[in-house]
Amino acid sequence: MAPSRQVINAQVSPKGSLETLSQREVQQLSAAGSGNLYQLFRQCALAILNTGAHSDNAKTILEAYQDFEIRIHQQDRGVRLELINAPADAFVDGEMIASTREMLFSALRDIVYTESEQSSLRIDLESSEGITDYVFHLLRNARTLRAGVEPKMVVCWGGHSISTEEYKYTKKVGHELGLRSLDICTGCGPGVMKGPMKGATIAHAKQRLQGGRYLGLTEPGIIAAEAPNPIVNELVILPDIEKRLEAFVRAGHGIIIFPGGAGTAEEFLYLLGILMHPDNQDIPFPVVLTGPQSAAPYLEQLHAFIGATLGEAAQRHYQIVVNDPVEVARQMAQGLKAVKQFRRERHDAFHFNWLLRIEESFQRPFDPTHANMAALQLTHAVPPHELAANLRRAFSGIVAGNVKAKGIQLIEERGPYEIHGDPDIMRPLDRLLQAFVEQHRMKLPGGAAYEPCYRVVS
Amino acid sequence: MAPSRQVINAQVSPKGSLETLSQREVQQLSAAGSGNLYQLFRQCALAILNTGAHSDNAKTILEAYQDFEIRIHQQDRGVRLELINAPADAFVDGEMIASTREMLFSALRDIVYTESEQSSLRIDLESSEGITDYVFHLLRNARTLRAGVEPKMVVCWGGHSISTEEYKYTKKVGHELGLRSLDICTGCGPGVMKGPMKGATIAHAKQRLQGGRYLGLTEPGIIAAEAPNPIVNELVILPDIEKRLEAFVRAGHGIIIFPGGAGTAEEFLYLLGILMHPDNQDIPFPVVLTGPQSAAPYLEQLHAFIGATLGEAAQRHYQIVVNDPVEVARQMAQGLKAVKQFRRERHDAFHFNWLLRIEESFQRPFDPTHANMAALQLTHAVPPHELAANLRRAFSGIVAGNVKAKGIQLIEERGPYEIHGDPDIMRPLDRLLQAFVEQHRMKLPGGAAYEPCYRVVS
Amino acid sequence: MAPSRQVINAQVSPKGSLETLSQREVQQLSAAGSGNLYQLFRQCALAILNTGAHSDNAKTILEAYQDFEIRIHQQDRGVRLELINAPADAFVDGEMIASTREMLFSALRDIVYTESEQSSLRIDLESSEGITDYVFHLLRNARTLRAGVEPKMVVCWGGHSISTEEYKYTKKVGHELGLRSLDICTGCGPGVMKGPMKGATIAHAKQRLQGGRYLGLTEPGIIAAEAPNPIVNELVILPDIEKRLEAFVRAGHGIIIFPGGAGTAEEFLYLLGILMHPDNQDIPFPVVLTGPQSAAPYLEQLHAFIGATLGEAAQRHYQIVVNDPVEVARQMAQGLKAVKQFRRERHDAFHFNWLLRIEESFQRPFDPTHANMAALQLTHAVPPHELAANLRRAFSGIVAGNVKAKGIQLIEERGPYEIHGDPDIMRPLDRLLQAFVEQHRMKLPGGAAYEPCYRVVS
Amino acid sequence: MAPSRQVINAQVSPKGSLETLSQREVQQLSAAGSGNLYQLFRQCALAILNTGAHSDNAKTILEAYQDFEIRIHQQDRGVRLELINAPADAFVDGEMIASTREMLFSALRDIVYTESEQSSLRIDLESSEGITDYVFHLLRNARTLRAGVEPKMVVCWGGHSISTEEYKYTKKVGHELGLRSLDICTGCGPGVMKGPMKGATIAHAKQRLQGGRYLGLTEPGIIAAEAPNPIVNELVILPDIEKRLEAFVRAGHGIIIFPGGAGTAEEFLYLLGILMHPDNQDIPFPVVLTGPQSAAPYLEQLHAFIGATLGEAAQRHYQIVVNDPVEVARQMAQGLKAVKQFRRERHDAFHFNWLLRIEESFQRPFDPTHANMAALQLTHAVPPHELAANLRRAFSGIVAGNVKAKGIQLIEERGPYEIHGDPDIMRPLDRLLQAFVEQHRMKLPGGAAYEPCYRVVS
Repeated sequence: MAPSRQVINAQVSPKGSLETLSQREVQQLSAAGSGNLYQLFRQCALAILNTGAHSDNAKTILEAYQDFEIRIHQQDRGVRLELINAPADAFVDGEMIASTREMLFSALRDIVYTESEQSSLRIDLESSEGITDYVFHLLRNARTLRAGVEPKMVVCWGGHSISTEEYKYTKKVGHELGLRSLDICTGCGPGVMKGPMKGATIAHAKQRLQGGRYLGLTEPGIIAAEAPNPIVNELVILPDIEKRLEAFVRAGHGIIIFPGGAGTAEEFLYLLGILMHPDNQDIPFPVVLTGPQSAAPYLEQLHAFIGATLGEAAQRHYQIVVNDPVEVARQMAQGLKAVKQFRRERHDAFHFNWLLRIEESFQRPFDPTHANMAALQLTHAVPPHELAANLRRAFSGIVAGNVKAKGIQLIEERGPYEIHGDPDIMRPLDRLLQAFVEQHRMKLPGGAAYEPCYRVVS
Repeated sequence: MAPSRQVINAQVSPKGSLETLSQREVQQLSAAGSGNLYQLFRQCALAILNTGAHSDNAKTILEAYQDFEIRIHQQDRGVRLELINAPADAFVDGEMIASTREMLFSALRDIVYTESEQSSLRIDLESSEGITDYVFHLLRNARTLRAGVEPKMVVCWGGHSISTEEYKYTKKVGHELGLRSLDICTGCGPGVMKGPMKGATIAHAKQRLQGGRYLGLTEPGIIAAEAPNPIVNELVILPDIEKRLEAFVRAGHGIIIFPGGAGTAEEFLYLLGILMHPDNQDIPFPVVLTGPQSAAPYLEQLHAFIGATLGEAAQRHYQIVVNDPVEVARQMAQGLKAVKQFRRERHDAFHFNWLLRIEESFQRPFDPTHANMAALQLTHAVPPHELAANLRRAFSGIVAGNVKAKGIQLIEERGPYEIHGDPDIMRPLDRLLQAFVEQHRMKLPGGAAYEPCYRVVS
Repeated sequence: MAPSRQVINAQVSPKGSLETLSQREVQQLSAAGSGNLYQLFRQCALAILNTGAHSDNAKTILEAYQDFEIRIHQQDRGVRLELINAPADAFVDGEMIASTREMLFSALRDIVYTESEQSSLRIDLESSEGITDYVFHLLRNARTLRAGVEPKMVVCWGGHSISTEEYKYTKKVGHELGLRSLDICTGCGPGVMKGPMKGATIAHAKQRLQGGRYLGLTEPGIIAAEAPNPIVNELVILPDIEKRLEAFVRAGHGIIIFPGGAGTAEEFLYLLGILMHPDNQDIPFPVVLTGPQSAAPYLEQLHAFIGATLGEAAQRHYQIVVNDPVEVARQMAQGLKAVKQFRRERHDAFHFNWLLRIEESFQRPFDPTHANMAALQLTHAVPPHELAANLRRAFSGIVAGNVKAKGIQLIEERGPYEIHGDPDIMRPLDRLLQAFVEQHRMKLPGGAAYEPCYRVVS
Repeated sequence: MAPSRQVINAQVSPKGSLETLSQREVQQLSAAGSGNLYQLFRQCALAILNTGAHSDNAKTILEAYQDFEIRIHQQDRGVRLELINAPADAFVDGEMIASTREMLFSALRDIVYTESEQSSLRIDLESSEGITDYVFHLLRNARTLRAGVEPKMVVCWGGHSISTEEYKYTKKVGHELGLRSLDICTGCGPGVMKGPMKGATIAHAKQRLQGGRYLGLTEPGIIAAEAPNPIVNELVILPDIEKRLEAFVRAGHGIIIFPGGAGTAEEFLYLLGILMHPDNQDIPFPVVLTGPQSAAPYLEQLHAFIGATLGEAAQRHYQIVVNDPVEVARQMAQGLKAVKQFRRERHDAFHFNWLLRIEESFQRPFDPTHANMAALQLTHAVPPHELAANLRRAFSGIVAGNVKAKGIQLIEERGPYEIHGDPDIMRPLDRLLQAFVEQHRMKLPGGAAYEPCYRVVS
C-alpha cells in the first residue's frame, strides 16, 4: 500500500438524477445481499473514484484500497451512497466532484439493470438478433439513445497510453469536431479516450452548445485499468467487450482511429470485418485514421498491413489524414451527412444502426487458448471479412497474453502462442507487431522490456 | 355508426419524448405481430383520441370507430405512428393536440413495458412484496417516481359523472391546491378527475410554476369509459384496478374524496382498510372528504355509514370539510408536512410509500360471483380492517353488476347478488346504497332508471 | 373604510428576476425621495395587490387602504420590498402569489425607466417618430419585444364589465386561440381582459406550451380601476392612453374586438382610423368582431354605425363572426400568416410594426373640454380616416364624462357636451349611444341609472 | 497587407439573443449615419472577428483589413449584420463561431447604449457618485449584474504576453477555481486573460455547471490589441480604462494577480490605493498574488517594492502563494465567504460593491504629459493611499510611453519622462522597472530591445 494514499469518508446523493431504486434492488446491492452484485459495484465505484489518479494498473488500485467500502441507503429523497475509505482525489475540499458522483450513479443504474435483464425470458443471448436487442436495451435504459437527434456521435479509438504529441493532437482533433457541433464517444479512459473530449469541451463552450455529449462506453473488466476521465458526461457499463464493441458501432455514426497498440488494431480489424461484410456494402460509415506528423510511419504501416492482408477493398473503407485536424473534422462532418441521408431514406433510426449486419462470430467472445490461437485460419482461402475476423482474434489473444490475468498465466505455463497462416499474411503481421514493440506501443504497464507472448509461424 | 362521426388520417411522431423502441417491440405492436398487444394498444389509443368527446360508454366508442387503425413505423428520428380513421376531435386544424400525442406515446411505453416485464423471472406476482415491486417498476419506467421531490402529490377521488355545482367545486379546490404548489393525481377521466387539474393549472400559472404535475393513473379496462382529460400531463396505464389502487396510495401523499357513487365508496373503503391496519397506525396519511354545500347530506351519510360499520377509529382517519376549498387545501398542506417529516425520520422515500403495509387481500382481484358476494363476512366478528376490506369487495361487486360486461351478464342470468351480514352493518349499507340511487349517483350510463343489482339481507 | 378589510405586512424579493436598482433609483423611489415617483409606485402597487378584489372603483380602493405603505430596501440579493397594511387577498397562507410579486417588480421597472427616459435628450416627444421611438424603448426595456418570434400576439379588446355569457364566450375564444399556439394581449384587467387569457392558459397546457404569453398593457391612470388579472405574465405600464394604444397596434399582430361600451368603441375607431390611412392600405392587419349569439344585435349595430359613418371601405378592414370561437381562431391564424409573409417581404420586424403609419393626431392626447368637443369635425367633408379620428375623440370625451374625475367635474359645472356634425353621422351616433345605454354598457360603476354626459346635435 | 490574409463575406443574426434595435439606432450605426458610431462599431467588430489570430498589434489588424465593412439591417426576425471582407478565422466551414457572433451583438449593445446614455441628463460624470452610477448602468444594461447570485466572480489580472509555463499555471489556477464553482473575470484578451477561463471551462464541465460565467471587460481603445478570447461568454465594452477598472472592483468579488508588466503593476497599485483608503478598511476584499515557481523572484520583488514604498499596511491587503493552484483557490474561496458575510450584514448588493469608496482621483483619467509625470508627488509626505494613487499614475504613464500612440509620440519629441521623488521610493521603483526589463516583461510588441521611456530621478 502506498504510504501517501489519502482516504476520505463521505455520503453522496444523486443531484437532479432520476435514479430511484426498489427495496429489493437496494438489498441486492448491499454487502449482505447477493455478494456478486456488491463486489461488482464496489470494483466499478473504486475505479470511478480513482479518476484523478495516474495508475492504470487495476490490481494496484484494488490493493491500495482494500478497506474501501460502499454502502447503499434508502432515504426520503431517494438513494444515498456511503463511502468508507474512498480515494481522496475524487473530492474537492471534501465534496465529491459532480461528474464522479454522476458516474457512480450511472454504474449503479447499469449494474442493477444488467442483473435484472439477465433474469428476463425476453433476452435471448443465443441468437444474433437477441444479442443486438440486448445491447439496445442496455443503451436505452442508460438513456443513451435519443430519438430525433441527427447523426453526430463520433467514436474515437486509440491507445490509452500515447506520447504527449499524440495526446495534444487528439485534443486538436476533438476541438475541430466540437467546433462543428459533433459529439464524442470513447472507451472513457485516459489518452485518446480523454483528449478528444477535452478539446470538444472547449469548442462546445465556444459554440455555446450546452448539451454536448461525451459518451464513455466501458466494461467491468477494463474500468479499473482505464478509469473514466471526468469529462465523460454519459457513462455506460456494458457487460463485456463484445457488447461494448457492438455498442460503439451501433450508437456511433463515424469512427476516428488514432495511434494505439494491439488493442487498437483489434478494434480496427473488428470494424473492417463488419464493414466488409457483403450485406453492409451500401451502408455509409465514415472512418478516418489519423495522427500527428510523428505518427505518419505508424499510420502507413497499418495501412500497408491492411492492404497486404485484406486488400484494396478493405482500404477503401477508411481515409488516412496526417497532421490535419481541420481536414479530419471536415471529412467526418461530410461523412455524417451521408449517414443522415442514408438513414432517412432507409428508415433506419438515427440513434441506433439497426441495418448494420454483425455476424455472430463478432458477437461471441473468443477464448484465447493456445489451441484456439493455433487454429485461427489466417489464410486467403476464407472470404476477406472472415479473415478480418480471424486477424482480430489474433490481436485479441495478444492483448490477453500481454495484460489480462488469465492470458498472462497461460503464457507463463505454456510459452508463447503460435500463430499460423499464409506467408503473405504472416510476414506483414510479424512486421506490424515488431513495429509496435519498437514504438513502445506494446510495453507492459510496469515498464519492463517487452517479451512477446506470441510467435508468428508462416 | 353515428352519421356525424368525423375521422381523419394522420402521422404523428413524439416531440421531445425519449421513447425509442427496438425492432422487436415495433414488430410486436404491429397488427401482424402478437395480436393481443396490437388490440390493447389500439383500444387505448382510441380512448385517448376520444378525449374531446362526451360519451363515457366504451362500447359506443369502440363501435363508432370500428375501422380505426394504428400502425407503428420505425424511422430515422425514432418511432412514428400512422393513424387511419381516427376521431377528428383530437386534432386542431389537422394537427394533433400535443397532450393527446404525448398520451399516445405514454400508452405505447406502458404497454411495451408491461409485456416485457411479464416475461421476467424477476417479477413475482405471488407475494405481496412482489406485487408492490411490480407496481414500483411500472411507475419508475413511466418516470413517475422523482427522487428528491417533497411530498405534494394530492390524489383526488370521486365520481366521473357529477353535478355542475360539484364540478365547479372540484375546480375551486384544485385552484387552492395549485396556489399552494401542490400537484394533482386522479383516475384521469372527466368530472372529479378533471376539475381539480383544471383549477390547479390556472393556479400554477398564477404561481409561475412550470413543472406542475397532473398525473393520471388508469387501466386498459376503464380507459375507454373514462378517456384521459387533456390536462393530464403524465399518463400511466396500470394493468388492473388493484395495481392502480396501490399506485394511488403509494405514489400519492394525501387523498381528497369528492362525491361519487359506488366506485368512490369502494375506493374509500379500500383506503380505510389499509389505514386501519395495525401496522400502519403510525403512518401519517391526510384524507379529506369534501363537497359543496349541496353535497353536505351525502358527506354526512357516508360519514355515518363509516361510523356505524367500522366505528370511530375509522372516522379518525379523515376529516370532513363542507364547502370550503381554502380549508381543504390548508388541511392537506398541513397533512403533507407531517408526511414529509415522517418519511425523513423513517428514511422512507418521498416518491414511494414503501412503509405502508398493504395486505394481499387488497392486492388480489375480487371475483364478484354470486357465491363470492354471498360469502362476504360483513360482521363485527372480523377485525375492523378486514371488515373494511370485505365492504370494499361488496361495493366492487355492485360496480361490476352495474357497469362491467361480465357483472351485468351474471345479474341477467342469476338475478341480483345477495349480501349478508350483521344487521347493524346491513341496515346502514342499505340506507347508503338507497341514498346513492336517490341522488342519481348510481344511474347507468344510458340514463335509464336504476335497477339494483344487489339485495341486502341482514 | 370597510370593516371587513384585511391587511397584512410582508417582505418580498423578486424570484429569478433580473431587476437590480442603483442606489439613486432606490432613493428616488423611497417616500423621502422625489415624492411623485413614490406616490405613483404606491398607487400602482396597491392596484396590483388588489388583484383578487372585485371593485373596479379606483377611488374606493385607494381610500380603503389609506395606510398602505411600500418601502424599498437595497440588500445583498438585490432589492426587497416591504409592504405595510397590504390587502390580504394578494397572499396565500401569508405568502404572496408569484404573479403578483412579479407584477410589483414590473411596475417598479417601468416607473424607474419612464422617469429615467424623461430626462434623456434622446427622447423627442414633439415628433411622431419620436413618440414611436419612445414607445419602442418602453416595450424593449420591459423585454416585451422578442426578436425572431413569429407573429402570434393577438390583442383582445372589449369591456371589463360584461355579462356572464359574454365572459364565457371570451374564454372559449381564448381556448381556441391557445390551441393554435397564439398568445394573448389585453388591457390586463377583468372581463374581456381576463377571459381569453384564462382560456388560452388551459389550451397552452394541453398543447404543452411552456412559454405562452399573456401580455397586459396598462397605464397608471387606469390600473387602479382595472387591476391586472393574475394570469398576466408580462405587465407593462405605459405612461398614458395614447402610448398604450400605440403599443397595442405595434406589438400586437391582430385584434379581436368583443362587446364593450364607449371605451371599446373608442379603441375600434382608433384602429379603423389608422388602418384607413392611405399609407397603410397594403399592410395586413387581421381584425375580428365577435361575441356570443346574444351579442349579435350589438355587433350588427356597431357594424351598421361604421357603414353609415365611415362607409364600406371601413367595413372591409374587419370581419364579423357570431358565436363561433373556432372560426374566430381560424380567421385570426389565417390573418397572421399574411402578416408574417408581409413582414418578411418588407423586412419589417416581427416584434414591432414599424411600417404602420400613425399620425400625430392619434398620438397626441385629446383634451375633452366643452369647446373641443363642440369643435369636432364630424362631417364627410374631411377624409374618412380623419373622420374616424374625430369620432374616436368624441367617444374619448364621453368616456371621460362618464368615469374620469376631470370629465365628471366639467359636466357637473357646465352640463352635457354638445356634439355637432352632419345629420347622417349624428343620427347613427345617437342610436348607437342609445343602444349602449339600453344594453347597460354605459352604466356607471356605482350602478345608478345612466345620465348622458353628451347631447347629439345634428 | 499580408498575402495570406483570408477574408469572407457573411450574414449573421443573433441566436437566442434578446437584442432588438429601434430604427433610429439602426440608422445611427450605419455608415451613412453618425460616422463616429459606425467607426467605433467597425473597429470593435474587427477586433472581435480577429479572435483566432495571434497578432496583438491593433494597428496591424486594422491595416490588414482596410476593406472590412459591417452593415446593419432591420429584418423580420430582428437585426442582421452583413460582413464584407471579414477575417476568415472567425468562421468554421463558412459559419461564424457562436461566441464570436454573441460578442458582435454585445459590442452592438454596448455601443448603442453608451451613445444613448451620453445624451441623458441623468448621467452626471462630474461627481464621483455620478461616475459610479454610470458604471452601474453600463453593467446592468449588459445584464452583468445578477441579483441573488452569491459572491463568486474572481478577477484575474496579469500580462497578456507571458511565458508558456506561466500560461499553463493560470490554466491550473482557473481549473481549481472552477472546481470550486467560481466564475472568472478578466480583461478578455489572451495570456492571463484566457488561461484561467480555459481551465475553469474544463472544471465547470466536470462539476456539471451549465451557467459558468467568463466575463470579459474591455474598452474600445484596447480591444484591438487584446482581442477577446472566444471562451468569454459575457463581453462588456466600457468607454475607458477608468470605468473599466471601476467595473472590475465593483463587479468582482476577489482578485488574483498573476505575473505581468507595467500594466499589471498599474492595476495592482490602483487596487491597493483603493483598499488602503481609510473608509474601506473594514471591507473584505481577497487579493492573491501568485505564479509558478519560476515567477517566485518576480513576486518577491513586487512584494518588496510594495513594502518599501507603501509599507507593511499595504502588504496586509494581499497574500502571496507560490506554485500552488489548490492553495490559491482555497484562499480565494475562503475570502469570498467573508465577502458574502459582510455584504449580508451591511445590506450591500452581492452584484455590485456599492460600499467601496473610490475617490475621484482614481476615477478620472491621468494625462501622462512630461509636466504631469514630473509633478507626481512620490513622497511619504502624502498619505499612503495617495502615494499609491501617484505610483499608479507613474506606471500608467510608462505604459503610455511604451505602447500608446500618443505617449510614444511625446517621448519621441521630448525624450524620456522624468520621475521625481523620495530616494527611498525612487530606488525600489528603479529596481522594479529594471527587473521588468530584464524579465522581458516590458518588451515592445515588435520584439525590439527595450528603450526605457522614463528616467527615475531621486
